[in-house]
Amino acid sequence: MEKVKVSIIGSTGYVGAELVHGFLNHPGVELVHLTSQSFEGKKFSDIYPVYRGLCDIVLDNPDPADVAKDSDLVVTALPHGVSSKVVPLLVEAGCRVIDHSGDFRYKDLATYEASYKLTHPHPDLLETAVYGLPEIYRKELKDAKIVANPGCYPTCSVTALAPFLKAHLINSAPIIIDAVSGVTGAGRKSDLAYSFCETDEAFKPYGVVGHRHTTEIEEQCSFLYGNKINVSFTPHLAPFKRGMLTTIYCTPSKEFTDVSNGKINEIYKEYYKDEHFVRVLDGKDLPDVKAVNGSNYIDVNGVFDPVNGLIKLFSAQDNLGKGAALQAIQAFNVMFGFDEKTGLETIIRGV
Amino acid sequence: MEKVKVSIIGSTGYVGAELVHGFLNHPGVELVHLTSQSFEGKKFSDIYPVYRGLCDIVLDNPDPADVAKDSDLVVTALPHGVSSKVVPLLVEAGCRVIDHSGDFRYKDLATYEASYKLTHPHPDLLETAVYGLPEIYRKELKDAKIVANPGCYPTCSVTALAPFLKAHLINSAPIIIDAVSGVTGAGRKSDLAYSFCETDEAFKPYGVVGHRHTTEIEEQCSFLYGNKINVSFTPHLAPFKRGMLTTIYCTPSKEFTDVSNGKINEIYKEYYKDEHFVRVLDGKDLPDVKAVNGSNYIDVNGVFDPVNGLIKLFSAQDNLGKGAALQAIQAFNVMFGFDEKTGLETIIRGV
Amino acid sequence: MEKVKVSIIGSTGYVGAELVHGFLNHPGVELVHLTSQSFEGKKFSDIYPVYRGLCDIVLDNPDPADVAKDSDLVVTALPHGVSSKVVPLLVEAGCRVIDHSGDFRYKDLATYEASYKLTHPHPDLLETAVYGLPEIYRKELKDAKIVANPGCYPTCSVTALAPFLKAHLINSAPIIIDAVSGVTGAGRKSDLAYSFCETDEAFKPYGVVGHRHTTEIEEQCSFLYGNKINVSFTPHLAPFKRGMLTTIYCTPSKEFTDVSNGKINEIYKEYYKDEHFVRVLDGKDLPDVKAVNGSNYIDVNGVFDPVNGLIKLFSAQDNLGKGAALQAIQAFNVMFGFDEKTGLETIIRGV
Amino acid sequence: MEKVKVSIIGSTGYVGAELVHGFLNHPGVELVHLTSQSFEGKKFSDIYPVYRGLCDIVLDNPDPADVAKDSDLVVTALPHGVSSKVVPLLVEAGCRVIDHSGDFRYKDLATYEASYKLTHPHPDLLETAVYGLPEIYRKELKDAKIVANPGCYPTCSVTALAPFLKAHLINSAPIIIDAVSGVTGAGRKSDLAYSFCETDEAFKPYGVVGHRHTTEIEEQCSFLYGNKINVSFTPHLAPFKRGMLTTIYCTPSKEFTDVSNGKINEIYKEYYKDEHFVRVLDGKDLPDVKAVNGSNYIDVNGVFDPVNGLIKLFSAQDNLGKGAALQAIQAFNVMFGFDEKTGLETIIRGV
Repeated sequence: MEKVKVSIIGSTGYVGAELVHGFLNHPGVELVHLTSQSFEGKKFSDIYPVYRGLCDIVLDNPDPADVAKDSDLVVTALPHGVSSKVVPLLVEAGCRVIDHSGDFRYKDLATYEASYKLTHPHPDLLETAVYGLPEIYRKELKDAKIVANPGCYPTCSVTALAPFLKAHLINSAPIIIDAVSGVTGAGRKSDLAYSFCETDEAFKPYGVVGHRHTTEIEEQCSFLYGNKINVSFTPHLAPFKRGMLTTIYCTPSKEFTDVSNGKINEIYKEYYKDEHFVRVLDGKDLPDVKAVNGSNYIDVNGVFDPVNGLIKLFSAQDNLGKGAALQAIQAFNVMFGFDEKTGLETIIRGV
Repeated sequence: MEKVKVSIIGSTGYVGAELVHGFLNHPGVELVHLTSQSFEGKKFSDIYPVYRGLCDIVLDNPDPADVAKDSDLVVTALPHGVSSKVVPLLVEAGCRVIDHSGDFRYKDLATYEASYKLTHPHPDLLETAVYGLPEIYRKELKDAKIVANPGCYPTCSVTALAPFLKAHLINSAPIIIDAVSGVTGAGRKSDLAYSFCETDEAFKPYGVVGHRHTTEIEEQCSFLYGNKINVSFTPHLAPFKRGMLTTIYCTPSKEFTDVSNGKINEIYKEYYKDEHFVRVLDGKDLPDVKAVNGSNYIDVNGVFDPVNGLIKLFSAQDNLGKGAALQAIQAFNVMFGFDEKTGLETIIRGV
Repeated sequence: MEKVKVSIIGSTGYVGAELVHGFLNHPGVELVHLTSQSFEGKKFSDIYPVYRGLCDIVLDNPDPADVAKDSDLVVTALPHGVSSKVVPLLVEAGCRVIDHSGDFRYKDLATYEASYKLTHPHPDLLETAVYGLPEIYRKELKDAKIVANPGCYPTCSVTALAPFLKAHLINSAPIIIDAVSGVTGAGRKSDLAYSFCETDEAFKPYGVVGHRHTTEIEEQCSFLYGNKINVSFTPHLAPFKRGMLTTIYCTPSKEFTDVSNGKINEIYKEYYKDEHFVRVLDGKDLPDVKAVNGSNYIDVNGVFDPVNGLIKLFSAQDNLGKGAALQAIQAFNVMFGFDEKTGLETIIRGV
Repeated sequence: MEKVKVSIIGSTGYVGAELVHGFLNHPGVELVHLTSQSFEGKKFSDIYPVYRGLCDIVLDNPDPADVAKDSDLVVTALPHGVSSKVVPLLVEAGCRVIDHSGDFRYKDLATYEASYKLTHPHPDLLETAVYGLPEIYRKELKDAKIVANPGCYPTCSVTALAPFLKAHLINSAPIIIDAVSGVTGAGRKSDLAYSFCETDEAFKPYGVVGHRHTTEIEEQCSFLYGNKINVSFTPHLAPFKRGMLTTIYCTPSKEFTDVSNGKINEIYKEYYKDEHFVRVLDGKDLPDVKAVNGSNYIDVNGVFDPVNGLIKLFSAQDNLGKGAALQAIQAFNVMFGFDEKTGLETIIRGV
């Protein structure tokens, strides 16, 4: 079989590098362009020496149209506001695109523009772009031209909430999402705030009101619920490289008459019974970022506290894995007709 | 001035060692007995080599009565259920005691016994024991015979909530406390779960329903509020050695008509204006465990999210500092008439 | 093609888990028995939850002969002194074996017995056992019955020294090997010494005189040199999970007349020109454990300091990778006729 | 007693902050100016929030002469090449100075200029400047105008070697110093190379030929030995914040006829018997950076390996403590007639 020609625009950030990792692993893919503004002319392995001898592709920086010409798929790992200009050029040139920014994740233009404080240059594309969560949009992904790869926090939150929102088993009145991310979430950059000496032995909240991912979570939750959902979202930065955990607080709706630990687990197991990458833990086992490190898995489970009537849902993923690059490869597999697990199974280790 | 003779029963755990650190630092204290069951006969500096030449006291293991005989104050860092037997012996022998277990923290016997699944051998002492949070019980601490040093999570939670509970500015309906602790919280022990290779790059919830500290938090919150308070408490373990952060979700009561970020900050500043160790951060600054590392400070601040009507309160402390041993020294200063800052100021560093 | 049936005796330590990782990755292997004394009856994924859904094989604990009966190859990850009893049973039952202990690494019985303070029950097998360093013993590995997987420090040291010893370019008078290992090197166990709180922010030498790996390094170096080589070996423990670096100090021999940085690099490049897993870095690039993390690569380079006439050689590997389990898989590929890279290429990431 | 007025030029780097920590701790010191080019007008506690309420001094940036006018002592934490211009101005204005750069550490101008690739603007001051290692230059420090605070690696290396060099017990032929530093050694700056994600799980050599500290070590060793000493020095970067360890390889001289572990220990104990901050460990105990964390102690011990005739010496210190700021305070105590331990005893903890 002929290989799918894939290029990555913005390949030297942490998401870019994880995309390289995943696609190198994929038997049906040929990497064509790895682009970089900062490191044009260097080898990919100069930036990530672990790849010496394994991926020595020379980084280039051609015009988007030229990247598109050589590729069946282009994955863009660009900043918000840049993607919205580059992606249309790629699509026009006949390419399919998976984009990692927030620029194509929203259906509601006003919400996007308020959240990102940007005017979208191609609002028409919002409608056709597909939100790249295969567990929800598998069918739409098959023929998508533009796939908006979900944000890390939204993937982690929506996956935990979906079965309960879909079946109206929890109340819409503010769902509280407390989340923790590893340091790779801040990207690969020279910034004192993320230096070893400042980050090690630190733990803090940030973006506690109005973090952009709030509205992305809300829009997806509302689609599932069929009605407007409000969430309170609070991210924290923790001293580990990869990983994300959400702890979600909500209350059972009147319909959820038999709420219990067992029932919550059962609902998860039923809802995700055909999903390979969502692992519903057994019994009282709870998600741990260590247990998803380096993988495309997302682990979920929940409990009910009868003393105060609250449901607590937990989900853990690798923020660069299911939270970014590996989920993009899962979407790629759907888009190009591969088994969804292709390239995503062989990469995990216990320590 | 004659020095206060202080002994520590159970001096080689992390809380014990932090007590040694603090008391060595204290100009009005003479350390008498440092006891240890496991390391009797060794020097304290054999267990903590950083103290070589600085604290070479030989660990002993005398009967509690003998410890009491030589001491003005005994600090007990013993397991729950052991303290309740040892502390009465010390008191009977004429000593004042600061205890680190949960055995004397409750006023309500039934709550204690249900939470710890133990029968208390000296329930009469619960009434006279003083809960060692100087910001609340300063007056009572002055003549206390038994001081129950608060749990780490309760200190962090109650300090953040007190101004709002006291003034009935938040609703009692479940207050949600999401908390994170460093690994020293698990104590000093040989346990694979806390090994470097299992803990590094890990992050997970634990004790998510019915953690013992829940009822301790509830009792103190109820005293402040003047009515029964229910909390939902969810601790997590994070890969740093020292530190604790709570993120608290609640709703403003009807009385809190002018709720805003600025107002929350103002209430904190007013309530804690005379408290040296509670630092109300300015403006939008938020607590970070790094900023309290090694200190007896607890940093607090809060925000209001008008979109969903939630108040979020944040507090950070060193779990071994304000969360355990250094708070005990603060209480000690109150008990023995020292300036409350004595021995607690000179121990901090920025990296 | 029929798959090779592989079993692992002692599969739940860190080396065992990395073997599982590697063999799961291998298209020509079927895992049969994963044995465990401590966790018999549990699933492998109960011990390493990252494998949930990916490797749920139930751990068993049959007699070695029964393991052998079902397997083409058994990999033993057993303690020294145990392997020497178990391996002969496996061989007798018709199996080929890769052993991870020190029991079959030596040709000289007396050196083994002095180093390990053990009497070898089957000294006859020392002669036929093949030292599993494919770069040196590729030919012998092809038909080996027993492969003694090299120690981590010896792999790292011998690979760095081989080109210079073989060509007599350095003097035999004590070669100084200063080495650093990550914490996984100590194995998976409940031990306060390797707890997060004791290991983080620590760095120390250990086993500074007479570490067992000294004699293993010396024997292999002597074979290469054709004459007795003496090394001074000093290991250190560093606060990272995986990785090993050696810094080697030696002097050029009289034959090495044109010694220089460039010449050292050239000798490495020539000697290892056909070796995929030994990466000779370019120019002044020096090995970093980060750049080999999770891989079977070993990076080498060296410099000459004209001021004092010393050659410094550097090598870095993943102690669980090229230093243990992945090197075993490389040897397995040689033994069973697979391309040497099979299963070892797709597992690397940059952060 | 009137307090000594101390100012710090360059107070917001890690060395500057550790100086603040130490001087705040010192009963005989009043901090006057804390200067900063980057953060003028901010409070010290804005940069290091742990100091909120404890050190809220506003950072200023006056001319050196104005700093000098207000101060008895100025500590300069400036880059090499800048100190050599600023320090003379301070001295001229009547101030005593402790400088942290390399600019006043050498007696031999040519060595300095070759090592730092700079022309010294005030070479006349090299003669009167005192090398701030109190264990060696205590007498000279008493009246010193300019104290050149030693480099971190030189302090650690020279302290380990001094007893043996002084008594000619080891050979001068290349002494091999293998050293490891924590990340604070690189300073406080925005640099991807020291970001959490790049530094964690990394370990690598750097500056392996011609590191500047080589000549500083050699000059001090030569003074002790009374003859030219050559060292081979190789630093490594390790993933911990604070700490430094040297492993030194050398050979006993002919005079050292009774070399043994015990004898090495005895020589250390005798040589340092009156030194509070040099801790000679007992028996086979070896230095660990954890055991000196946050302190001004330096731990030393050594072994002899009879198999290959090598002596191995080990020393560990906190690179910001004895390796920089706290050693400066020790020197300050000597300069101003305080007990040498003043301000340096109360700052240590076990975890």
